[in-house]
Amino acid sequence: MMIVMQANATQAQISAVVALVESLGMQAHLSSGKDITLIAVVSNTAAIDPDQFLLMPGVDRTFPITRPYKLASREFHPENTSISVKGLNVGSEEIAIIGGPCSVEGREQLMETADAVVEAGGHALRGGAFKPRTSPYSFQGMGEEGLQLLAEARQRTGMPVWTEVMAPEQVPLVGKYADVFQIGTRNMQNYDLLRAVGESQKPVMLKRGMSATIEEFLMSAEYILSCGNRRVMLCERGIRTFENSTRNTTDINAVPVLKSLTHLPVIVDPSHSTGHWEYVEAIARASIAAGADGLIIEVHPRPNEAVSDGAQSLKPERFAGLVKQVGAIAEAMGRTLAEQPKIVA
Amino acid sequence: MMIVMQANATQAQISAVVALVESLGMQAHLSSGKDITLIAVVSNTAAIDPDQFLLMPGVDRTFPITRPYKLASREFHPENTSISVKGLNVGSEEIAIIGGPCSVEGREQLMETADAVVEAGGHALRGGAFKPRTSPYSFQGMGEEGLQLLAEARQRTGMPVWTEVMAPEQVPLVGKYADVFQIGTRNMQNYDLLRAVGESQKPVMLKRGMSATIEEFLMSAEYILSCGNRRVMLCERGIRTFENSTRNTTDINAVPVLKSLTHLPVIVDPSHSTGHWEYVEAIARASIAAGADGLIIEVHPRPNEAVSDGAQSLKPERFAGLVKQVGAIAEAMGRTLAEQPKIVA
Amino acid sequence: MMIVMQANATQAQISAVVALVESLGMQAHLSSGKDITLIAVVSNTAAIDPDQFLLMPGVDRTFPITRPYKLASREFHPENTSISVKGLNVGSEEIAIIGGPCSVEGREQLMETADAVVEAGGHALRGGAFKPRTSPYSFQGMGEEGLQLLAEARQRTGMPVWTEVMAPEQVPLVGKYADVFQIGTRNMQNYDLLRAVGESQKPVMLKRGMSATIEEFLMSAEYILSCGNRRVMLCERGIRTFENSTRNTTDINAVPVLKSLTHLPVIVDPSHSTGHWEYVEAIARASIAAGADGLIIEVHPRPNEAVSDGAQSLKPERFAGLVKQVGAIAEAMGRTLAEQPKIVA
Amino acid sequence: MMIVMQANATQAQISAVVALVESLGMQAHLSSGKDITLIAVVSNTAAIDPDQFLLMPGVDRTFPITRPYKLASREFHPENTSISVKGLNVGSEEIAIIGGPCSVEGREQLMETADAVVEAGGHALRGGAFKPRTSPYSFQGMGEEGLQLLAEARQRTGMPVWTEVMAPEQVPLVGKYADVFQIGTRNMQNYDLLRAVGESQKPVMLKRGMSATIEEFLMSAEYILSCGNRRVMLCERGIRTFENSTRNTTDINAVPVLKSLTHLPVIVDPSHSTGHWEYVEAIARASIAAGADGLIIEVHPRPNEAVSDGAQSLKPERFAGLVKQVGAIAEAMGRTLAEQPKIVA
Repeated sequence: MMIVMQANATQAQISAVVALVESLGMQAHLSSGKDITLIAVVSNTAAIDPDQFLLMPGVDRTFPITRPYKLASREFHPENTSISVKGLNVGSEEIAIIGGPCSVEGREQLMETADAVVEAGGHALRGGAFKPRTSPYSFQGMGEEGLQLLAEARQRTGMPVWTEVMAPEQVPLVGKYADVFQIGTRNMQNYDLLRAVGESQKPVMLKRGMSATIEEFLMSAEYILSCGNRRVMLCERGIRTFENSTRNTTDINAVPVLKSLTHLPVIVDPSHSTGHWEYVEAIARASIAAGADGLIIEVHPRPNEAVSDGAQSLKPERFAGLVKQVGAIAEAMGRTLAEQPKIVA
Repeated sequence: MMIVMQANATQAQISAVVALVESLGMQAHLSSGKDITLIAVVSNTAAIDPDQFLLMPGVDRTFPITRPYKLASREFHPENTSISVKGLNVGSEEIAIIGGPCSVEGREQLMETADAVVEAGGHALRGGAFKPRTSPYSFQGMGEEGLQLLAEARQRTGMPVWTEVMAPEQVPLVGKYADVFQIGTRNMQNYDLLRAVGESQKPVMLKRGMSATIEEFLMSAEYILSCGNRRVMLCERGIRTFENSTRNTTDINAVPVLKSLTHLPVIVDPSHSTGHWEYVEAIARASIAAGADGLIIEVHPRPNEAVSDGAQSLKPERFAGLVKQVGAIAEAMGRTLAEQPKIVA
Repeated sequence: MMIVMQANATQAQISAVVALVESLGMQAHLSSGKDITLIAVVSNTAAIDPDQFLLMPGVDRTFPITRPYKLASREFHPENTSISVKGLNVGSEEIAIIGGPCSVEGREQLMETADAVVEAGGHALRGGAFKPRTSPYSFQGMGEEGLQLLAEARQRTGMPVWTEVMAPEQVPLVGKYADVFQIGTRNMQNYDLLRAVGESQKPVMLKRGMSATIEEFLMSAEYILSCGNRRVMLCERGIRTFENSTRNTTDINAVPVLKSLTHLPVIVDPSHSTGHWEYVEAIARASIAAGADGLIIEVHPRPNEAVSDGAQSLKPERFAGLVKQVGAIAEAMGRTLAEQPKIVA
Repeated sequence: MMIVMQANATQAQISAVVALVESLGMQAHLSSGKDITLIAVVSNTAAIDPDQFLLMPGVDRTFPITRPYKLASREFHPENTSISVKGLNVGSEEIAIIGGPCSVEGREQLMETADAVVEAGGHALRGGAFKPRTSPYSFQGMGEEGLQLLAEARQRTGMPVWTEVMAPEQVPLVGKYADVFQIGTRNMQNYDLLRAVGESQKPVMLKRGMSATIEEFLMSAEYILSCGNRRVMLCERGIRTFENSTRNTTDINAVPVLKSLTHLPVIVDPSHSTGHWEYVEAIARASIAAGADGLIIEVHPRPNEAVSDGAQSLKPERFAGLVKQVGAIAEAMGRTLAEQPKIVA
């Protein structure tokens, strides 16, 4: 932490700050110039509340020096973390593509979509059984019946299953069926939920909150990691900005920034980050070109009949085209698409 | 809903849209001009997914016409809703000021603060027993022991108690002690939690999500209202913008906008919306001048020792000054401060 | 400036940074802890590009310590600056209200509005003769004829005139007629224009850019001040955020923040910061309650016939009501409305 | 335009709106349902101010139906526009890479950079002679001397020259030396300047304002186009959001959105959109993968000595690597890098 004194701070005020630093068992390093005095505290300050200094007379501002996350940080874990999901290695040199509907709507819709995803070359199946919806009057998901259908689709196609868990008490139930717990954007800071999946033994894909900074995103990953679960993937899904020609703004910068700050795998969700099928392929290609490790894409056999997110869902034939395009970009990057997993029930 | 056709849409495409509208049991109103065809659907379209039209060939865009909330809307409920909390009428002509610490830290700290709040003329006590914290390494709250202390402070001062509930399964426990359930900003779209407090019989103060639009805010209120609980207060607590000289940006416009769109009471939290004690009084006055019904303010006897939010907490003497200043502004508005409630255990 | 070294920086890298600091004639203060080394440079670093350090091997980040503006800073100029505009003292204890149309549209419209503003108790007249318009197909202003009408209205009512100047070469012409140069939001960083008004002898009202930080806003004021013109007023007019229920988001926090950081007068423009007449009074009151020194308000006798900004213009009778309400809030703040100036031609 | 009446609008209010529409020579199409009446106006409404309807009694809201730009719109000009700059065809199948320093600092620096750009395979040279700077105390550019050096570098390397023009009166001078006028982000809505380059005969690269919506960006292009200059390129350079780990947020969505809405070429500036050299290559690749037609990249032989933007400048060898990577992505997209132009003086 660095403490900047006001231009007119008195010697007594400076001494009081130094005394408080020392009373906390740390060393204060003083630097003085014309109109400015700085007090640097270079011990591990994670446990100290900067406010107690900010509120002292003569203090102008405080700055954090160290980043507040450790387990998520590449500084302390330089190698990439690769997470095996039933043989699919997310975060390795291989690119993973997860496809499927926004919501599980019924047996026929899900099996038709799962077949299309696997046939197109996809690697895993997504689908929501519990749905967080902005309106209380909208479809809220099929619940456990939806989870059972996902398990059936896994058996049918050999692909692992990604599905959202919305509350701590759902963790055991969803865990019975899912291969990866998805934490949705509205729950990125639902700390009870983060702890619950952190105490489970399954991989987690954490979606960025729609107005979360990258530092807050990594702090939420840190919650899960600090509970003992080291298999966390990060998912950029667009942030909220003033621009309204798309549903969200894909923060493509976040891809290289995250790859620089953390060792965890980075996945992009261009369906939510654009909100319109017409733009999904372009942003899927861009994400891989920026260095992402995977993509999660909404696919629906008849988007105009989808109960949710139809506008951003790809038809199976477009999804197949997307897999090919992404493969070409991966190759230009010196990477390849992953092999398709073959889970045997 | 309004459907705008593309400039070059064919007659067959237009007819297909009209046919789909009619197949859903609604009437389509067609308007055509040079290069433009509009199809208006003026039935209640809440249950229709606009995406199914957006995805039809020849369709350019769709617009919603009706607002998606009903129970929260002033259009259908023109009179202000006033909510009685143990004799404190929030949303009436009288201004309510809720004061107290960010976190309950211990018996002495809470009683000292509660005494100061009541002596200064405050109307209710706030204090968190369960704390959502960005870092897994920070203090997470005293839990039930904190709730018991809040109940003791109520008995001691006669003031009702506002406290946060973070998960559906906490509702019965927190409800044993609280007079008002606070839903925090990170939980504004935690729908299971909204339903749980919606099914309870206690008033709820819903804080706006830090990047929630006003429409989304009202949709979350609608969730609670639609579960049968009509006692919902809205709390503006600042939004996230590019400006970083304050912790958040107080959306002061939201005060008159909410008063125009909804009949529910509007409270402002200038402690969080500014993040620094130095600005709290100015924004408290501004909120009342803009038409807010109340304020929720962080108070701590020794902010520099606070375990959380010290920088934005007022000392008791400043809080007392704030109550006086707010009283003067209320008077200039033709309103008054509420009487202090006297709860008898 | 503070330089934070990477956790694994070598001794040689640290020495190289220190050597560069010293080669620039400044002193480097080193602080070292486990995993962290800080190098503080407390001389006046305004002239140093932090990038030259950021790009050195082993450097993680750099932070500025000193604020980049001097002449605008309250630190170096603790007393409020009060600016006299033909007897109207902006930035004093007295509140100034500037009213008038968005655009000067013709003689009758302007005189009718000016008469209404003065009769309602307003202190100055606003009106645009040169208009920056988003669309090339919109009305671009009356030009010099509009300026002549403004001068006529000044003579008729005794009120000083605020009007926008859009380009450096317009400064002499606009200066012939205006009492205050207004710099519009789109020109806040038009540096040639800032220099041109900085070299003139007339007061300037600088509007905040719609996505300018408070620091950038003060840096633009610094441009004008550094050219020798010390009569600069700042105008908060709303910032661009994700919220779209109003045209802009009034940054009400900016009022106390600016009053803390700078000695210059602060004016708020609730017409632009809300975009709708229905919300203008609430935000005008809030601005004064937050500590602003004045208001600039759009007034039009027949808003539905206005060539620009009709939706946010007040009719004369509402403007008169606003002046009364603002007077009551001023009184609650221990301030008063200014006396109406009486300019004699 | 569509006019939505309030739920409780009277028949007389509806008739008054219809009468006003008709008095303006247009047709009103009425659609009524329970609680809702819509009035559609499908004539060309560009010249009508929606405010005059918004302010009528009984009107709730108005929506625009048609997009406000015409010349920039792909709807009215379906084919891509390709702009020839001395043999370099921007907006064709070929990708153009413009490289060079932020500022022209001197003869040696510029020639060394220009040689490196051409040797690496770049297609054009950028460099600022007039610099808009946030601080009045920073370097403001070499002026005409810088332009002369750019012309010398063009002769030396055969590459065309991109340089910024900051004010209308600079257009003739800058036009004597430049091949492309660059309009900077702070000037995107400097309408006098847009008109001045619109009346010139040289291609223009218009940078997006840092908080401009895509619609506003296209309206600024429309200004230039409407003055008769049809050679306009658009440059996405990052937008301002809450995220502060990068200087700006690259709006990668803007690439496919612009390619869908307009026929004009789209260039991305990853140097400004990230603000750090470490992320430039990733975002350069992503931009081409998203469908951009070109890139503009800051290059400096010794970034740590650059007078401006050193942190985001690439060294020559990294720029050479970037050109190769972009070539590989272009190939994966079925495009190629442009041939290097050979301008003969």
